[in-house]
Amino acid sequence: MQIDYQNIIEKAYRQTQPLKDPGKLADYIPELANVDPGQFGVHYTNLDGADFGMGDNQVRFSIQSIAKVLSLTLAYKMVGEKIWERIDVEPSGTKFDSLLLLEINNGIPRNPFINAGAMVVCDILVSHLINARMEFLDFVRDLSDLPDLAYSDTIADSEKAHGHRNVALCNFIKSLGNIQNKPAEVLDFYFDMCSLEMNCRELSRTFSFLANGGVKVSDQKEIISTNMSKRINALMLTCGFYDESGEFAFKVGLPGKSGVGGGIVALYPRHFTIAAWSPRLNPKGNSFKGMKFLEEFTNHSELTIF
Amino acid sequence: MQIDYQNIIEKAYRQTQPLKDPGKLADYIPELANVDPGQFGVHYTNLDGADFGMGDNQVRFSIQSIAKVLSLTLAYKMVGEKIWERIDVEPSGTKFDSLLLLEINNGIPRNPFINAGAMVVCDILVSHLINARMEFLDFVRDLSDLPDLAYSDTIADSEKAHGHRNVALCNFIKSLGNIQNKPAEVLDFYFDMCSLEMNCRELSRTFSFLANGGVKVSDQKEIISTNMSKRINALMLTCGFYDESGEFAFKVGLPGKSGVGGGIVALYPRHFTIAAWSPRLNPKGNSFKGMKFLEEFTNHSELTIF
Amino acid sequence: MQIDYQNIIEKAYRQTQPLKDPGKLADYIPELANVDPGQFGVHYTNLDGADFGMGDNQVRFSIQSIAKVLSLTLAYKMVGEKIWERIDVEPSGTKFDSLLLLEINNGIPRNPFINAGAMVVCDILVSHLINARMEFLDFVRDLSDLPDLAYSDTIADSEKAHGHRNVALCNFIKSLGNIQNKPAEVLDFYFDMCSLEMNCRELSRTFSFLANGGVKVSDQKEIISTNMSKRINALMLTCGFYDESGEFAFKVGLPGKSGVGGGIVALYPRHFTIAAWSPRLNPKGNSFKGMKFLEEFTNHSELTIF
Amino acid sequence: MQIDYQNIIEKAYRQTQPLKDPGKLADYIPELANVDPGQFGVHYTNLDGADFGMGDNQVRFSIQSIAKVLSLTLAYKMVGEKIWERIDVEPSGTKFDSLLLLEINNGIPRNPFINAGAMVVCDILVSHLINARMEFLDFVRDLSDLPDLAYSDTIADSEKAHGHRNVALCNFIKSLGNIQNKPAEVLDFYFDMCSLEMNCRELSRTFSFLANGGVKVSDQKEIISTNMSKRINALMLTCGFYDESGEFAFKVGLPGKSGVGGGIVALYPRHFTIAAWSPRLNPKGNSFKGMKFLEEFTNHSELTIF
Repeated sequence: MQIDYQNIIEKAYRQTQPLKDPGKLADYIPELANVDPGQFGVHYTNLDGADFGMGDNQVRFSIQSIAKVLSLTLAYKMVGEKIWERIDVEPSGTKFDSLLLLEINNGIPRNPFINAGAMVVCDILVSHLINARMEFLDFVRDLSDLPDLAYSDTIADSEKAHGHRNVALCNFIKSLGNIQNKPAEVLDFYFDMCSLEMNCRELSRTFSFLANGGVKVSDQKEIISTNMSKRINALMLTCGFYDESGEFAFKVGLPGKSGVGGGIVALYPRHFTIAAWSPRLNPKGNSFKGMKFLEEFTNHSELTIF
Repeated sequence: MQIDYQNIIEKAYRQTQPLKDPGKLADYIPELANVDPGQFGVHYTNLDGADFGMGDNQVRFSIQSIAKVLSLTLAYKMVGEKIWERIDVEPSGTKFDSLLLLEINNGIPRNPFINAGAMVVCDILVSHLINARMEFLDFVRDLSDLPDLAYSDTIADSEKAHGHRNVALCNFIKSLGNIQNKPAEVLDFYFDMCSLEMNCRELSRTFSFLANGGVKVSDQKEIISTNMSKRINALMLTCGFYDESGEFAFKVGLPGKSGVGGGIVALYPRHFTIAAWSPRLNPKGNSFKGMKFLEEFTNHSELTIF
Repeated sequence: MQIDYQNIIEKAYRQTQPLKDPGKLADYIPELANVDPGQFGVHYTNLDGADFGMGDNQVRFSIQSIAKVLSLTLAYKMVGEKIWERIDVEPSGTKFDSLLLLEINNGIPRNPFINAGAMVVCDILVSHLINARMEFLDFVRDLSDLPDLAYSDTIADSEKAHGHRNVALCNFIKSLGNIQNKPAEVLDFYFDMCSLEMNCRELSRTFSFLANGGVKVSDQKEIISTNMSKRINALMLTCGFYDESGEFAFKVGLPGKSGVGGGIVALYPRHFTIAAWSPRLNPKGNSFKGMKFLEEFTNHSELTIF
Repeated sequence: MQIDYQNIIEKAYRQTQPLKDPGKLADYIPELANVDPGQFGVHYTNLDGADFGMGDNQVRFSIQSIAKVLSLTLAYKMVGEKIWERIDVEPSGTKFDSLLLLEINNGIPRNPFINAGAMVVCDILVSHLINARMEFLDFVRDLSDLPDLAYSDTIADSEKAHGHRNVALCNFIKSLGNIQNKPAEVLDFYFDMCSLEMNCRELSRTFSFLANGGVKVSDQKEIISTNMSKRINALMLTCGFYDESGEFAFKVGLPGKSGVGGGIVALYPRHFTIAAWSPRLNPKGNSFKGMKFLEEFTNHSELTIF
């Protein structure tokens, strides 16, 4: 495809930037509530090396749930298809049915991106690694070519202090038999994992391996097989945006993942990744401007997997 | 793409054909329960005109829920984006939450492919057409270049006699204010619509317009806009296979739609459509062999949107 | 017990009468929405023959769900304990779980007083009687010594025209196998049954047999056994007031049943029955003043079964 | 009432004793799983001082949830009617809706006898007492005239080690804002409370105050007001037997409370209390023989509140 991405991104950014933003900052921990809410950055990374960003694309933010794709990648790489004996691959419907479904399904979460599923992934990593906290960090550092990448202890500690609902969830799965380690240990790692910080450029580069058939672009190292990569992309498409996953597939038409810190990363297989960040969230918990920008981007480019 | 589709399809068919089929026929009406269960046909239609089928690809069967894509297409074409004020675009989770969600959401179904959503689509067509039954049939006849296509009155009558659950659903939505016509009238049309019969070749050809950006292939007539076509594809990917939609995206990686008659149609945007039919259903209500065949097809071809 | 009931009732009535009534008329059919909302009557009937009423105690109103106790009585009398194979005896929790529970329990309603349960009772009567409509009316006429008692066709017709939710419910149970007759036939009888009209005096007298061990007071005829009578009283206590049954047991402490027409009947086994009527309903669907009056009555008399 | 209780109890005991018991021991902790399953005791205590027991009526067992009536009594006594701002008084329907309802109701449990409600009661006691563990024990020692009554540390520790579901529940309510202390502290007290051990005689005597209008029988000390006592009795009737509360009201017709250790206590206001114990539980979690015995007792005595 010969497409002037830079032009399309500039246009989409300029259309989105001045929009009145009715979104609200995540406020369950002070570290997220105190972020400067007007920030907005986007970054595009083509597999052929082209790279282009705008706005606050180099300001780091808490990637939160976006990290769940990376922990899934590592666990899937280590365990293989057997991982799906402990986690399903279906969209989750709504929060209303999640606990009921966990009970009916013997503690098998609907997919690896809802909190329950991400906790089971963490449990798998805690079981298979000697030091999950350090080894997962090393994995992401290598994947992102960012040797100084770090957890935010401030954020992780704050989550731990306020995370009663996650404590509830992890103990509930434990009671159903699908957490093998101590809940407290799994939760510690879970909160650390979600505290990673990246900027849009780093995020779009880090996710390039999923647009590239599982192969890291900078050094052509196979992280996971093409088949695994396709499956993770499918999961992002059907389950990546909480209760707005269908809407994102419908309006943007790319696999992607959002986080409560206001970040979104999306990708077009075999072509590019694109990241957007703006901290105000819409009522479904996804970045208001991030969603709008990607919708504009798709409208102008007509680049969707559909 | 220069790919030997014929070879891939033959291989996938031969691998699937001898599998022991643990599936069960739909048995809620005698017309479906009495189908010869061993039948198995597949048909591939490329946008460039190439066409290839195997097995019982010319035996007509009841397409059932697959027709919901066609009624949605007609209603979407007539009403435009306003249709989404009455139907949402999210995967439905499980049956357990559907009635609860309808109530919480004031009768707005989660998506147009669950029964509740398809009924609202029917209600829209009943409101906007003088004779929904005839005009919808004309629309599908034109779309499929099959002037003799017909409803099966036997099947429709049988559904009407056994459809207490659908009568319940339609009246429930009526009570919530999202059915405008008389439930009995909407249900009559709904059962007619689901009684259409096609064979695999007809089915794959009929759906080609969705692989072709909304344009009918045989005469290049625009049925719906490219954007609308993409959105219907996105809906098929996230919601096309009941509670197995995630699994189909995960394992096959193509937008598609199944029916309780054992038919499945899937498509690769800008390239091809493929239909499979075998009447025995897996526990999730999708054709056992149809699913297996498409999985094999994808494994060999590596052709997925991810 | 030597208690000055007249004095207690007068006091409770005078305290309740001037209360500002925040309640709302049932408005789903015009016949209920157009009732004079300020009416308020109470009537007390002692088993020893003492009888005392105040206010609008001789104005007839639509007894609605209160009639479900009478249809249960007739069906229980005819079928015996086998009736509980088709209906459970547990409080229903909330409306949110009712349809889910019906499905899980193969169409067995939680109790005979929720709509689902009352429909199964009607189905039983339709099966066991030649003309359920007439024979049930004869039964109530005899029980109440009111040979002119009649269904309100106006109300029944209005319910039939607006009862989409009940149509939904009856067809849903039919699909689960626990309605044996045609849903339309069962619904017709159900709506007739709920259209009975009585005044407070008639209501309290009619229910005296349940305070009298199943024996009609006026002619000492055994309607049902003492054991059956106790069991119906237990059901009224645990399930008689929709999602406010616990509250009524807690604050009033007597078995009773309310209807959406604003009527309530309660009873103290071996002693008396008491009826109250005022058409404005609290948010849980029970008469605001009726509930308050009975609470005051209990506070003054200290007569509760606890 | 001049009734030969001793004779009735003997008859009911003899009829129940030889029944083949299909029940199962609670097996989630070894302390309950290892109890001798054949034990069966009953004890009757009349307010006039008559006292009569049979079988293993002097063997102590873990009273478990029965203790929730005692912690409620103490909290209700201390806080008064304001307690109902934090706990509702409605039957809970089934386990399926409990977490959903907690969320919808902002963490307000349906009643004080489901685990969620008992935890909020514990939280209230932890807030209002300097040392809830010791002061609650003192309260029960005084109420039961058993100065040596003690918690079973073995059982409490075992519950703590296996209680992931209760940890989940307490943290969930905390996240909804209806637990004020640290979940771990509330849970410690909750598990201690449930570890109390009594025999049937002690249990029936301890609960006599609820049959006696809130006044302790041995020394005529008012524990709570008559009105409070009536309300706790009403709660036991509507909510005392998990998802079998309606059945118990229906078949036995007395307020009561069961525990997973196989104990049941029931009472007839103004007359007597009766306790039964047999460790095998029916599928609803209530003592199989305990339920049967009380049913026989009621059948012979015809003593029910209905």
